Amino acid sequence: LIPTGNEVVLSLSLMNQILSFDPLSSVLVCEAGCILEHLSLFLRPHRHIMPLDLGAKGSCQIGGNISTNAGGLRYLRYGSLHGTVLGLEVVLANGEVLNLLSKLRKDNTGLDLKHIFIGAEGTLGVITKVSMHVPPAPAAVNVALVGLDSFEKVKRMVGRTRGGLGEILSAMELIDGQSMEMVVGKKEWGLRNPLAGSAAAPVAAATAAVGAAAAAVGTEGGSAASPYPFYMLLETSGSNEEHDKAKLEDLLTLALEEEIIADGALAQDVGQANDIWKLRELIPVAIEEKGRVHKFDVSVPLDRFYELVERAREGLREEGVGLATAGAGAEGGREGVSVKVVGYGHLGDSNLHLNVAVPRDRPDPPAVSRVLARVLPWVMEQEGSVSAEHGLGQLKKKYLPLTKSREVVAVMRGMKKMLDPKGILNPGKFFPAEE
Amino acid sequence: LIPTGNEVVLSLSLMNQILSFDPLSSVLVCEAGCILEHLSLFLRPHRHIMPLDLGAKGSCQIGGNISTNAGGLRYLRYGSLHGTVLGLEVVLANGEVLNLLSKLRKDNTGLDLKHIFIGAEGTLGVITKVSMHVPPAPAAVNVALVGLDSFEKVKRMVGRTRGGLGEILSAMELIDGQSMEMVVGKKEWGLRNPLAGSAAAPVAAATAAVGAAAAAVGTEGGSAASPYPFYMLLETSGSNEEHDKAKLEDLLTLALEEEIIADGALAQDVGQANDIWKLRELIPVAIEEKGRVHKFDVSVPLDRFYELVERAREGLREEGVGLATAGAGAEGGREGVSVKVVGYGHLGDSNLHLNVAVPRDRPDPPAVSRVLARVLPWVMEQEGSVSAEHGLGQLKKKYLPLTKSREVVAVMRGMKKMLDPKGILNPGKFFPAEE
Repeated sequence: LIPTGNEVVLSLSLMNQILSFDPLSSVLVCEAGCILEHLSLFLRPHRHIMPLDLGAKGSCQIGGNISTNAGGLRYLRYGSLHGTVLGLEVVLANGEVLNLLSKLRKDNTGLDLKHIFIGAEGTLGVITKVSMHVPPAPAAVNVALVGLDSFEKVKRMVGRTRGGLGEILSAMELIDGQSMEMVVGKKEWGLRNPLAGSAAAPVAAATAAVGAAAAAVGTEGGSAASPYPFYMLLETSGSNEEHDKAKLEDLLTLALEEEIIADGALAQDVGQANDIWKLRELIPVAIEEKGRVHKFDVSVPLDRFYELVERAREGLREEGVGLATAGAGAEGGREGVSVKVVGYGHLGDSNLHLNVAVPRDRPDPPAVSRVLARVLPWVMEQEGSVSAEHGLGQLKKKYLPLTKSREVVAVMRGMKKMLDPKGILNPGKFFPAEE
Repeated sequence: LIPTGNEVVLSLSLMNQILSFDPLSSVLVCEAGCILEHLSLFLRPHRHIMPLDLGAKGSCQIGGNISTNAGGLRYLRYGSLHGTVLGLEVVLANGEVLNLLSKLRKDNTGLDLKHIFIGAEGTLGVITKVSMHVPPAPAAVNVALVGLDSFEKVKRMVGRTRGGLGEILSAMELIDGQSMEMVVGKKEWGLRNPLAGSAAAPVAAATAAVGAAAAAVGTEGGSAASPYPFYMLLETSGSNEEHDKAKLEDLLTLALEEEIIADGALAQDVGQANDIWKLRELIPVAIEEKGRVHKFDVSVPLDRFYELVERAREGLREEGVGLATAGAGAEGGREGVSVKVVGYGHLGDSNLHLNVAVPRDRPDPPAVSRVLARVLPWVMEQEGSVSAEHGLGQLKKKYLPLTKSREVVAVMRGMKKMLDPKGILNPGKFFPAEE
């Protein structure tokens, strides 16, 4: 909420009324300033949930979620906002109110204009009201954490998980070993890695395998806080506790037998499930304390998903930059600076979060900048997306003409000119200067 | 495929190549002329299915499905094409090729332009290539048919079914008694109503209840071919045969006990399941033989869903038009003409198909036209959609300004002018003449 030039910042926080909810059709209509978490709490006694959930739920507004086409933790199960948003009310730059507030799941009357405002980052109009299809609350939610020795095995487990859990799979998240160490290392949070420190046979066997994997990639080593280089958080949401638990237990047993996973833990109650989720959700909070964080939110085909993190670490090492590992400090490398590199994200959507923390008290060393400058071009070479779920904003707008063709950018500009000819809405965001 | 004026009809049927399929990410890329059923057959050995299915699958092309934003039988489970289409290639009116062919589930780089072409009925560009997220084939599919005494009970059963089947529910279709009679009456198809002619106790009890219901609504009576005024087809698609069957059986047992349904039959093999589906899918084919068919494809809130069919029948009766019931002929009423009125559709999406067959050999009697003219205005009063899944085309384009505001239609026109300034693409479709 920082004006970047001669701008007025518009807050919709007083437009926070829920207008209607119909449990029979599962349709919620509300004003755009409603906080995501408030909507979730409102729906709880009606046994429904919001189709999206993300770390910022306590402060983000639904209008902003839609304007940025937010993805988040439930995308795998409930899909894109282009599917769950049924209607919008939008105020245009000329003050006209566009009433697109349908409550119907199917309505093919003319062009479906609401879609151009989803993910438009506020550049085409101001979303003021929202109509959404919200899913019924699942009767049973189960959470498991598994440890794996290599990213090859993570890929195999993705296939097994899709096959074994099918329609009840609601989250499939990646936590890398350094992310795990970092979160567990925050002693005041009191979180533990349920797969660390166990003396059971599979863990011992796996620890050895980790050593081999670590030697191969040259970056990861097992530690007390994180015996494995990779973890997957699996969540099921279904209508029958007994059936769902049976499916999840069968999957873990089979994956252990086939040595795809090295160890696994199934949450026994809601408290344990929440704790496992915190191991994933607090990664972006934990890394903020390691320095100023460069965040990359990218889509990369699953086959080469984690290679981006490995390339970043390798590049930094080659440039003589120190890599912080477990614990607070690390030697500074020959450049006298140490950075922290972690990778995590949504395996089910091929959406990786690469975070790089650099020292806060000084500008980025040129060596770091050189390496980070190679990240997004590599993503484009893989036909990935340089902005998976966070939008281009102003920082990444230079990438628009690099990832989209001249013709595509021209149509985007045409739409902007039609709806906001004076360019008063969110100026300077995502549209690059005309050449 | 009939030119309406001085037009050239463009066929894409030679652009029928499948370009790539990646089972790991479940992404299919193909040319727009591919026939929907060919794509389904291609995916079968890869254990995936198309996210949409409809009666015309053997002849419709995927580009046309997307241009009309087709709904169909799997909408309830796999959602809108706005969610499953990942990318498009579109040729614009000026010959430029718009490359929007992303294969990523998440890609927030600038405006997501593909959405304006989904459901645009070919008025903004010609879709030439398609990239889609296709779901893994379910391991188990189960189909049941239940008979109900009133639409009130249908509504209660919708709630029970959503709760009991949850994430495995893949279809919830309505077949009214007259539709059932008509399809079963086509002797050459050899189909039977699995809930007819059984001597089991629940059926006998239910037949009596049907009599009462029929008296109340004044239109429906039990017959040998159709002892109930309403049927629901329930389908589950899941990953575990045993779990899915248990859920479906529990639901039917409970609904019988609570007298929400009067009878039910669970298909015991694929042949029986296909036969139950035919009872639903062949309704539009069967009614074509009853005369020239007026088809209404509308969204109506579930609460008043079937009232539209009852109002049509009642209105016709009041106007002195005869209503054909079981068997071929019917007395012609005092207007000397008899019509057939059936209602069926997708309960899960609140999408009703009202079909009215009138004699082929003469123009519509004014009495019939008067009644049919009241259908869509009533739908609009209920905040329904006059075109749920079939688009406005040219027949219904006069309804665009009646259902959408002046501002909304103006933005649609602005887009059309920007992308097709000479109006050469699908002229005369859905955009009404400028006032």
